[in-house]
Amino acid sequence: MKRNIKLTVSYDGTDFNGWQVQTNGRTVQGEIEKALGIIHQEKIKLTGSGRTDSGVHAKGQIANFYTEKDNIPADKFTAALNSMLPRDIRILKAEAVSDEFHSRFDAKIRIYRYYIKAGGSCEPWHDRYCWRTRHVPDIGRLNRLAAPLSGIHDFTTFTAAGDPSKSKIRQLYTAAFTIEGAFLVFKIAGNAFLWRMVRSLVGTLMQLEEGGAGSDEMRRILTSLDRSEAGTTAPARGLFLEKVLYDERSII
Amino acid sequence: MKRNIKLTVSYDGTDFNGWQVQTNGRTVQGEIEKALGIIHQEKIKLTGSGRTDSGVHAKGQIANFYTEKDNIPADKFTAALNSMLPRDIRILKAEAVSDEFHSRFDAKIRIYRYYIKAGGSCEPWHDRYCWRTRHVPDIGRLNRLAAPLSGIHDFTTFTAAGDPSKSKIRQLYTAAFTIEGAFLVFKIAGNAFLWRMVRSLVGTLMQLEEGGAGSDEMRRILTSLDRSEAGTTAPARGLFLEKVLYDERSII
Repeated sequence: MKRNIKLTVSYDGTDFNGWQVQTNGRTVQGEIEKALGIIHQEKIKLTGSGRTDSGVHAKGQIANFYTEKDNIPADKFTAALNSMLPRDIRILKAEAVSDEFHSRFDAKIRIYRYYIKAGGSCEPWHDRYCWRTRHVPDIGRLNRLAAPLSGIHDFTTFTAAGDPSKSKIRQLYTAAFTIEGAFLVFKIAGNAFLWRMVRSLVGTLMQLEEGGAGSDEMRRILTSLDRSEAGTTAPARGLFLEKVLYDERSII
Repeated sequence: MKRNIKLTVSYDGTDFNGWQVQTNGRTVQGEIEKALGIIHQEKIKLTGSGRTDSGVHAKGQIANFYTEKDNIPADKFTAALNSMLPRDIRILKAEAVSDEFHSRFDAKIRIYRYYIKAGGSCEPWHDRYCWRTRHVPDIGRLNRLAAPLSGIHDFTTFTAAGDPSKSKIRQLYTAAFTIEGAFLVFKIAGNAFLWRMVRSLVGTLMQLEEGGAGSDEMRRILTSLDRSEAGTTAPARGLFLEKVLYDERSII
């Protein structure tokens, strides 16, 4: 009997060429498919909720695959896969879901967090997971700059050349900075994201804050639909795909 | 004018062959001496409070060196060194101290922490910094087993072949387990430590707890002065040199 297995996956993206299988380089999807191939003795295709770029981390990436192996209870895939996977990928959960479940098409909300260590130096064990900036921004001003982002907008300004999506319209539910211990954290939730959109938003917001701009300027840049108006793209190391939600009512 | 500069250093030990300069391999002392050499245009000798083994981390290693460079205020060595050092070493503080200060001979108390993730899996960004064990120990029993360790003892049982110290007598002030978030942490403070002593203690305590032994057994092993009585040595990845204190009254 064919079963559809949903995986919750965390990974340290530092040493990966991103999520998606490439002709060259180590990828998260590639490593998990390799382990699934050993278990099944045949090629198994894994579908992820979306790609993450080279160097981007995940606390709760979601993926699914179909299996005909009746002798493995769904939750046992966690230990079986972890015993074969490299230590920078961990399966947090494996569960059987309905045959129709599709980790990308059914995803309703994606939540990312971007970690910034502003001013001072960063302890070595945090260095792979944050963007160190010399300037220490004012969080109130950052949040005023980020305010125009919530809602439904065309985010053409904040994508990278080569983004394959036809429509650049996305809905954002949350886009706000908070403090977590020694870190400044940008939390962003939306129905979906364009390529490099989160990093482009973070880089632009930080640059506008430092330059003294107000939210009118942010609004003007957003509505310009001109990629050359965006600021620098923040580095991949600070970005975590935190959660993927499949029920719109679960918005937090 | 010659000045003596004291450094507080943190590092991720994963990719180092330990603290001390070796004929082969990357070492923390070696990397800092290389950066000091560039600043001074001559070889500068750095003295550490003690060696840490390959894979062991430090939050507050202490080291000192002599400089004749009058044009660099002591605290500016922090930024100057950090700009040249690899990102897995960070200088947290640089300060001028008296000419007589010696980071090894003057150290009164060393404090280590050992991180254990018991049961379940470990998120990828914690994996380099903890020992994952399948068994989940009882913290009360661990603390009863560790109780006989405080005080002045001959720790021959818990060292490794090749330890160069003549006397194996050391004084321990604290040796206790606590819970910190998802981790079980062994905190140990002593005047000094033998080679691999902390890792040997952690491995032995965990093994005795799992085997159901009581503190009499721990006392017997300690006083046997027989290395073959010790349990396994816990892996380097869980161990952090947390602090080195130069004033006995500052015991915490």
